[in-house]
Amino acid sequence: MRIERLAVIGVGLIGASCALALRAAGAVGQVIGVGRSRANLERALARGAIDRGVVLDEDWTREIAGADFVLIAIPVAQYRGVLKTLAPALPRHAVVTDAGSTKQDVVLAARELLGDRLPQFVPGHPIAGNERSGADAGDPSLYVGRQVILTPLPETSQAALKRVEEFWTTCGARVARLDPARHDRILAAVSHLPHLLAFMLVSELASRKDSDEYLSNAGTGFRDFTRIAGSSPEMWRDIALANRDALAIEIATFRSALEALALSIEHGDHAALDTMLGRAADARRRWGETTAGFGPGGNGA
Amino acid sequence: MRIERLAVIGVGLIGASCALALRAAGAVGQVIGVGRSRANLERALARGAIDRGVVLDEDWTREIAGADFVLIAIPVAQYRGVLKTLAPALPRHAVVTDAGSTKQDVVLAARELLGDRLPQFVPGHPIAGNERSGADAGDPSLYVGRQVILTPLPETSQAALKRVEEFWTTCGARVARLDPARHDRILAAVSHLPHLLAFMLVSELASRKDSDEYLSNAGTGFRDFTRIAGSSPEMWRDIALANRDALAIEIATFRSALEALALSIEHGDHAALDTMLGRAADARRRWGETTAGFGPGGNGA
Repeated sequence: MRIERLAVIGVGLIGASCALALRAAGAVGQVIGVGRSRANLERALARGAIDRGVVLDEDWTREIAGADFVLIAIPVAQYRGVLKTLAPALPRHAVVTDAGSTKQDVVLAARELLGDRLPQFVPGHPIAGNERSGADAGDPSLYVGRQVILTPLPETSQAALKRVEEFWTTCGARVARLDPARHDRILAAVSHLPHLLAFMLVSELASRKDSDEYLSNAGTGFRDFTRIAGSSPEMWRDIALANRDALAIEIATFRSALEALALSIEHGDHAALDTMLGRAADARRRWGETTAGFGPGGNGA
Repeated sequence: MRIERLAVIGVGLIGASCALALRAAGAVGQVIGVGRSRANLERALARGAIDRGVVLDEDWTREIAGADFVLIAIPVAQYRGVLKTLAPALPRHAVVTDAGSTKQDVVLAARELLGDRLPQFVPGHPIAGNERSGADAGDPSLYVGRQVILTPLPETSQAALKRVEEFWTTCGARVARLDPARHDRILAAVSHLPHLLAFMLVSELASRKDSDEYLSNAGTGFRDFTRIAGSSPEMWRDIALANRDALAIEIATFRSALEALALSIEHGDHAALDTMLGRAADARRRWGETTAGFGPGGNGA
């Protein structure tokens, strides 16, 4: 795996971590960062994640013209503008992938805007991240042992797919494939809903007049449960809206479960509570054993 | 702080950790363990947490007769039987405290069953623990930097209160005081509801036909959010039922928040989502900074 010139559009936690991982593996020549804020690009430069930074407001297509690999790692709501500008500038031999947490909306935008460059695009989603943001949060080991889901299209070039798989394995990840709709359905349940539940719990507590007294009595269970509520609000607003259909199903299912729980508690229904709690504890312990490789830091987006 | 003979009723994670912490501090002479299972008492003996173990089915009151400090650390639903047996055996100079996660029900049981020994009892709740159970999980540093809430009664002897405060500070904890009802209201919001939400999410996913595919795509965000769902189902069933009134309020509040979220997503209400997510992220980050002393392991019950 060798990339001569990597363009990272969006040099935040995800983009900077990829650049640092490829550098550490000696797999990349030059890294160009394209981003919204000059200040963040300066931090990426200082970290050694990129060699040169260009802000999105300037003409960044010149940088793309010399790139053989492009990673899009910006909030999904900003894809359309970027893809529109990217398509005509993209060299024929270059490969494009992305790190967006939703895939159907990304595929829709790519189909509409990439034109005959569509086969060069491999939609992807690294199940990695943490509650930190920006280039300062970049970590070359972020992807080690993590799963990356690729959702290739019928049109996707096999060569491009192979190259993107190598990109992620070089970063230390393992690669799986899913259909975009299936990806969005699964991620709504195991990632998007949990994130929103954590945000909701903290938001509701923080809006209480006496929130300080509540929060000062919260322990490490609260700490773990709510860690993902420190994540980027902008990113999670975009995910919630981009995956609204799948999320609506998950929220409805969870509301039913919450109603059932309220009734079990109200009626003192030991058996129902034992069934629910026991099934969860068993499943969580089994899951914890199969994912023992997960280190302490980080939490999947 | 010096205890000549400590009786620990319930030598699980909480009880064994106290015994080990006091031993490490050189603050205790003999430790007697009283528990439901002989096998767990054997493990507590092997760990050096206790010097002698007696099962609850046998006559354990002889052991209490020689104790100057009694810690009750069993699921709250089992308090009544224990308090009834304990009261007549308790020496006048001995102090009793407990580690139950709910306090109004404990106070009610103590008032009914402790008789003239009531002033010797100091209800307490260490905001510490993790998803492990049993004497094997005992950890002498479990309480270091954690908060313990005491909910003394008007009848509580000042000497007993002072002794229980010393007990916990010797274990490394800091001590706060709350009214029992206030304790239950606050803990319902910052601990009991989050635990039940985590249990519910995992239980619902585990009951799906294709749960393996969901769980194999879950990342470290899911890991942290659901870690508390690996906790003891029996303990959490008891807590849910013991604190049902406060929990009902919190569940109703959360259901309203969930309905509001569903509408925000359905209507694409950027402003509402930004407000909710932003408030949560700010509050969570501030909270994380004020509780920076929290180490990696453990999660509050």
